[in-house]
Amino acid sequence: MQNNSLSKNGILPVVETIGFDLEKPSLNDNIADWDRLLRFLEKKKIAPVRTTFNNLKRLPVQIRRNGFSGQAILTFWKHYWELVDVCGTNTTLPALGAAFDLGTTRIALYLLDLTSGKELLKTSVDNPQIPYGEDILTRIIYANTEERLEELHDLIIQKFNEVLKDSIKKVGAERNNLYAISVAGNTTMSHFFTCLDPSNICKEPYIPSVNRFPLLKASELDLYANRDALVYVFPNIGSYFGGDIIAGIIASGMHRKEEVSMLIDVGTNAEVVLGNKDWMIACAGAAGPALEGGVVERGMMAMPGAIDKVRINPETFELTYHVIGDKKPIGICGSGLIDLIAEMFQAGLLTIQGKINLKLKNKTDRIIETEDGPAFIIAYKDETGDNRDLIITDIDIGILLKSKAAMYTILNVICRKVGLEISDVSKIYIAGTFGNHINPKMAIRIGMLPDLPLDRFVGLGNTSGIGASKLLLNRNIFNEIETICNMITYIELNVNVELMHEFRGALFIPHTDPNLFPSVKIPELAKG
Amino acid sequence: MQNNSLSKNGILPVVETIGFDLEKPSLNDNIADWDRLLRFLEKKKIAPVRTTFNNLKRLPVQIRRNGFSGQAILTFWKHYWELVDVCGTNTTLPALGAAFDLGTTRIALYLLDLTSGKELLKTSVDNPQIPYGEDILTRIIYANTEERLEELHDLIIQKFNEVLKDSIKKVGAERNNLYAISVAGNTTMSHFFTCLDPSNICKEPYIPSVNRFPLLKASELDLYANRDALVYVFPNIGSYFGGDIIAGIIASGMHRKEEVSMLIDVGTNAEVVLGNKDWMIACAGAAGPALEGGVVERGMMAMPGAIDKVRINPETFELTYHVIGDKKPIGICGSGLIDLIAEMFQAGLLTIQGKINLKLKNKTDRIIETEDGPAFIIAYKDETGDNRDLIITDIDIGILLKSKAAMYTILNVICRKVGLEISDVSKIYIAGTFGNHINPKMAIRIGMLPDLPLDRFVGLGNTSGIGASKLLLNRNIFNEIETICNMITYIELNVNVELMHEFRGALFIPHTDPNLFPSVKIPELAKG
Repeated sequence: MQNNSLSKNGILPVVETIGFDLEKPSLNDNIADWDRLLRFLEKKKIAPVRTTFNNLKRLPVQIRRNGFSGQAILTFWKHYWELVDVCGTNTTLPALGAAFDLGTTRIALYLLDLTSGKELLKTSVDNPQIPYGEDILTRIIYANTEERLEELHDLIIQKFNEVLKDSIKKVGAERNNLYAISVAGNTTMSHFFTCLDPSNICKEPYIPSVNRFPLLKASELDLYANRDALVYVFPNIGSYFGGDIIAGIIASGMHRKEEVSMLIDVGTNAEVVLGNKDWMIACAGAAGPALEGGVVERGMMAMPGAIDKVRINPETFELTYHVIGDKKPIGICGSGLIDLIAEMFQAGLLTIQGKINLKLKNKTDRIIETEDGPAFIIAYKDETGDNRDLIITDIDIGILLKSKAAMYTILNVICRKVGLEISDVSKIYIAGTFGNHINPKMAIRIGMLPDLPLDRFVGLGNTSGIGASKLLLNRNIFNEIETICNMITYIELNVNVELMHEFRGALFIPHTDPNLFPSVKIPELAKG
Repeated sequence: MQNNSLSKNGILPVVETIGFDLEKPSLNDNIADWDRLLRFLEKKKIAPVRTTFNNLKRLPVQIRRNGFSGQAILTFWKHYWELVDVCGTNTTLPALGAAFDLGTTRIALYLLDLTSGKELLKTSVDNPQIPYGEDILTRIIYANTEERLEELHDLIIQKFNEVLKDSIKKVGAERNNLYAISVAGNTTMSHFFTCLDPSNICKEPYIPSVNRFPLLKASELDLYANRDALVYVFPNIGSYFGGDIIAGIIASGMHRKEEVSMLIDVGTNAEVVLGNKDWMIACAGAAGPALEGGVVERGMMAMPGAIDKVRINPETFELTYHVIGDKKPIGICGSGLIDLIAEMFQAGLLTIQGKINLKLKNKTDRIIETEDGPAFIIAYKDETGDNRDLIITDIDIGILLKSKAAMYTILNVICRKVGLEISDVSKIYIAGTFGNHINPKMAIRIGMLPDLPLDRFVGLGNTSGIGASKLLLNRNIFNEIETICNMITYIELNVNVELMHEFRGALFIPHTDPNLFPSVKIPELAKG
């Protein structure tokens, strides 16, 4: 079923538009109308071909009506093709594909022209389930009856349809022109999308209902698309390792490489994959929440109003920052927090234990006492969007250091599992908006990322969306994903206690063992 | 996708009921519920497995609810399996299959238990399209609008559903227990069944809409069955060579044999297939109508009231006959006609030219003159069911001889096409009710069948129904049929004029060349 000959645009999309000009029927060649087209397609290696009853009634008539020439649109279902439409030679039939990144917080759509391979439009909206719970756990608990599960499922479908309707219209196409949809989400979101019971995902031994979703039809899910459009949901590896990470692997291309690389996705959890084209090991661990907003008092997502970059002058302790969008700051996002900790540490404002250095209280009025203990003012109230001092406390910093320690520990443990040093890893791909915003130098300084040459760190952006798009443009990825799922070894770090010792060492800045971070200069002041 | 390991009952049905008792989920084995079952099935070589959205929502829950043990019902879709149901260990889930012989005149249903392989019930009903035309051509002409095509299509579906409902109830099962349906019919009937335009079937160059029907779902056709039941329609080779003959080949098993054999189906047309496991040649020609009833004045189908056997004492010219059912005769069916001609010839009542021997008029009062010329009384009016003399005329006999001459010619021509003598053919399978009733000795005597040892002739009965049943019980037949379709060479004899000379010789009884029929003694009286 694999077809390796590239189509005219150098892509192998899951929807093919094939022009045809068949021999006219004669006594010497009296094959049936339908089979005549199939014989032609078979020569193009498009076989076997099936269709639905509705199309079977319609398509042979179309073939004949168009004088045995025209264009055929076929969708790829792994083990066969489905003929979904036939039209005349002069009709322009855009074949659209919609790739969704279905995040817990945001839903991103990439609308593609599957003939040219071009991205026509990119848009994103809030996940409509947020009112039912910011985090996944709350939503899982809410969805404890069939009706409520259906309710949360419907919310996603309706939102998808809204976005699809709007986007398809924007590119001047019609509902029927959308022939393929791919969806990459974490395990729980994929369960909500397919209306599957997620209740066992969060209970030991953490069992999803489904890992490998069957291919579905748009009509089955009531999606705004051609009724026969194929719907591909990226498979999960486990409850805490979802299709979003599989899409990330696809986006990175690490599964095709000889060299060993690593993919890090910092979301609610930190998910890490290590491997190459022959083997792959993965784990997930609670690491990320502090970087996602909501956990640190003034933390927020990387969106307008969030400080995403911080610099501190180690002489004057003067602080400069960058805010996303043309706005006053109202909070600080993950990359901003990493910058902040790294710069505070560099200036001696933080000790290696991660405490605000009260010795400097007389050198800067940014260090204050609050009822939660010592705090540091990032932005004074007259600079902020909400007229409140934007501060960070020792408690916040403690939470953050736990996150970074978890991340560092996971990266090391996963390498050790396969007998590698972290320095053997040729590329570290960082997924998500976080990956695009993070400054690896800063992350190394706080001991979150390992002390490797900076060119080994590659921010990939929305890897879920990129992976989902890539699949629509290359049907061989169906098989690549199956291979990945078969070869990947998943380690459940949540149940692994051997990390405790390592984790403790990593709670320091950058680490209790400074030899692990030769490039990081430890300021005298920070030694506390 | 081929699975050669026989299931427990020595069959490989298109529906498998697989008992399972899975490992319970644990931290060390935390694969998803759905994938847990699929992993088990894969070990049984049942893979890949898909399902519909509706079943995806339902089945993982069922698996868990049943404590990870139970039974899974899967249907075979050539390139993958579909999981359609899961139930507890103690539930009895009959997996039914329905094989249909969809004839122009009669529809026969064979209801099978696909677990044991047993035939549970066999029944037949009139084709409800008969009021729209006894013959196919009239129905094709009637169905010249979409509405009328739909009308004729609906008639079949409704009749199928009536018969299915009734039969499923009779065997104590339910609609949902029917998981597979196979349908073998001629090209036109298969088009009506799938609601396809048949209009080009009867116009040169005789092009069907579809030869190889895609697998369909019962719900698509609104059939009374499990909504996910698979519907297989036997493929056509051409307009005059339909799925009924493919089913006939399957019923005969000739496609698996080393030796060369022949399949003859005498219906409205005579369809003939010659070949073995490596090659196959087929043709169809107008030959049969005289033997089907309706053409010969008093001809009728092989049904109650029809004379199906005739013997004539050559000394006394006394005639004895056998009537189907416990009834008075009202007509004579194909096998009866062959007997009649053979016995009349043997007694000298017919000349080798096929004329009633008027020289014998003074020896028997069965020879009479009518306004249509000489006739022979088969049954006197006091013996018949309609109080009319049951007669046959010279004209009738002429029509019959044309049929038998066509048949004999076709058999010889097809052999010659591949450089064989008819005597090289190891078995001649005769399909249809006709095949079950015909007496080969009589058919040889009139020169309809070649003069071969009688044990080479095998009557097979309802080959369409048998072939359709066999497919449900052996999924490898999907591929066997594809192989047959790919290798068969179809010769359109309707457009072949080279047969004229041969045909003329075969119009005599048994033939102008008596050396072709060494076993047939030609009575002096018949020499005319």
